[in-house]
Amino acid sequence: MINGHLVDADSANFSVGDMAIQRGYGVFDFFKFINWQPVFLDDHLDRLFHSARQMRLEEGLDREDLIAQIISLIYANQLKDVGIRITLTGGYAEDGYSIHRPNLIITLTPLTLRRDLPPGIRLISHPFQRQLPEVKTIDYLMAIWLQPFIKAQGADDVVYRNGETILECPRANLCIINANGELQTTRTNVLAGITRNKVLELAQQRVPLSQQDIQLADLYAAREAFITSTTKLITPVLSVDGQWIGTGHPGPVTKALSADLLQLVFSDNRP
Amino acid sequence: MINGHLVDADSANFSVGDMAIQRGYGVFDFFKFINWQPVFLDDHLDRLFHSARQMRLEEGLDREDLIAQIISLIYANQLKDVGIRITLTGGYAEDGYSIHRPNLIITLTPLTLRRDLPPGIRLISHPFQRQLPEVKTIDYLMAIWLQPFIKAQGADDVVYRNGETILECPRANLCIINANGELQTTRTNVLAGITRNKVLELAQQRVPLSQQDIQLADLYAAREAFITSTTKLITPVLSVDGQWIGTGHPGPVTKALSADLLQLVFSDNRP
Repeated sequence: MINGHLVDADSANFSVGDMAIQRGYGVFDFFKFINWQPVFLDDHLDRLFHSARQMRLEEGLDREDLIAQIISLIYANQLKDVGIRITLTGGYAEDGYSIHRPNLIITLTPLTLRRDLPPGIRLISHPFQRQLPEVKTIDYLMAIWLQPFIKAQGADDVVYRNGETILECPRANLCIINANGELQTTRTNVLAGITRNKVLELAQQRVPLSQQDIQLADLYAAREAFITSTTKLITPVLSVDGQWIGTGHPGPVTKALSADLLQLVFSDNRP
Repeated sequence: MINGHLVDADSANFSVGDMAIQRGYGVFDFFKFINWQPVFLDDHLDRLFHSARQMRLEEGLDREDLIAQIISLIYANQLKDVGIRITLTGGYAEDGYSIHRPNLIITLTPLTLRRDLPPGIRLISHPFQRQLPEVKTIDYLMAIWLQPFIKAQGADDVVYRNGETILECPRANLCIINANGELQTTRTNVLAGITRNKVLELAQQRVPLSQQDIQLADLYAAREAFITSTTKLITPVLSVDGQWIGTGHPGPVTKALSADLLQLVFSDNRP
């Protein structure tokens, strides 16, 4: 759906004059409907509106209208389990440089869901901080540029760091169970992940929470580590920069929190 | 023109699945034809190919074919003085994250040219460094985001700095005539501007060249300052962060170099 008009994915076209193509200027959010029910929809829409305000792309954006468009798209496509991406761009600028009326794009992708703990991944750390890190922009330039470097190191993904402070993965937050047995995650200069926030709530029943941002030394010394995201839920981290985290296998807190989260995401009585 | 197909600007559409819209991943270059003749075309194509290689977007890119497409577009549109933008994006990725066959877009804009020294501008400095600064990416997120902040300071544009080192404006290089009377410009972690390079060549006849990157203190103490770009050629800088540069008026070296550059750009015997 582009600006409220239903279009087929194959013919979902867009002017080359848009500020996303001209200047990489846009924001988005991504969330799921499972068994026709939204998963954490309010949180995602809150964040989308926050991103839009921060980037001055909120003109014409209406929450009730947006929800109506999403529902109509889901039923038009008869998709029971579906990923929804909402993208807002800077629109068609006459001068190619100023924000004009934003363009709104909604795209649907059928989902195949897994309901268990995914296999663990290996990370490398890399010095980089996203621009406007608290906004979910479309800027993944560094993440995509780094892909061959990540593969060459035998890793699956990268975690950014600013000096010694660990930040986030390009599409996920990082949490650790630190050497003191506390759950620790970096809260400054990162995107506030919806899944991460749910995990922090769930974790209160299980482990103490640290309020400190993660330092590289904390990460290397951690008992367990995992990433959180809408797509990957809780995915264990087995190693960072070639060093095993804990035993190099998913740990007990990771497993317990993953079970809690799966319960929450797949519950019919989801809040 | 999209992937070799001639299309009207109004109907020049593009799939929303392209990596530029999904992930802000693309490069471009911009140059002019004046009176049917290319201006520094070889330099611009060299840089475009450099950008494409750095971003792994060179697949299918052929220099002779590209020049033929540009010429045919100019004659099809009968544009004597024209700006040409060539954009290369990451293509349509199935997973929305990996580079696929790049998309090539060529757009033309009629130009109205001025042949004198433009009015001076006021800059503010701001701590930021472009990611992959030696590549002409489509990433202008920070530049556009900063616009209201620039206006609120009564300025016309921003110059980025990394700590005390002055880098570049979002769409131009900065040069100064420093307190010793040397032409000085930052060469590391900035885009190597084609116009800047021409000015450095022209300047050899006029002033000594410094090889040092510009520090904030150099800038504040400069006798003269100007920016260089394909669009703005040499444009004087009158003030930075509210402090006058030199007398606060365009200086003698700026004027002389501007005349040299205009001569070169508008010469029929341009190399």
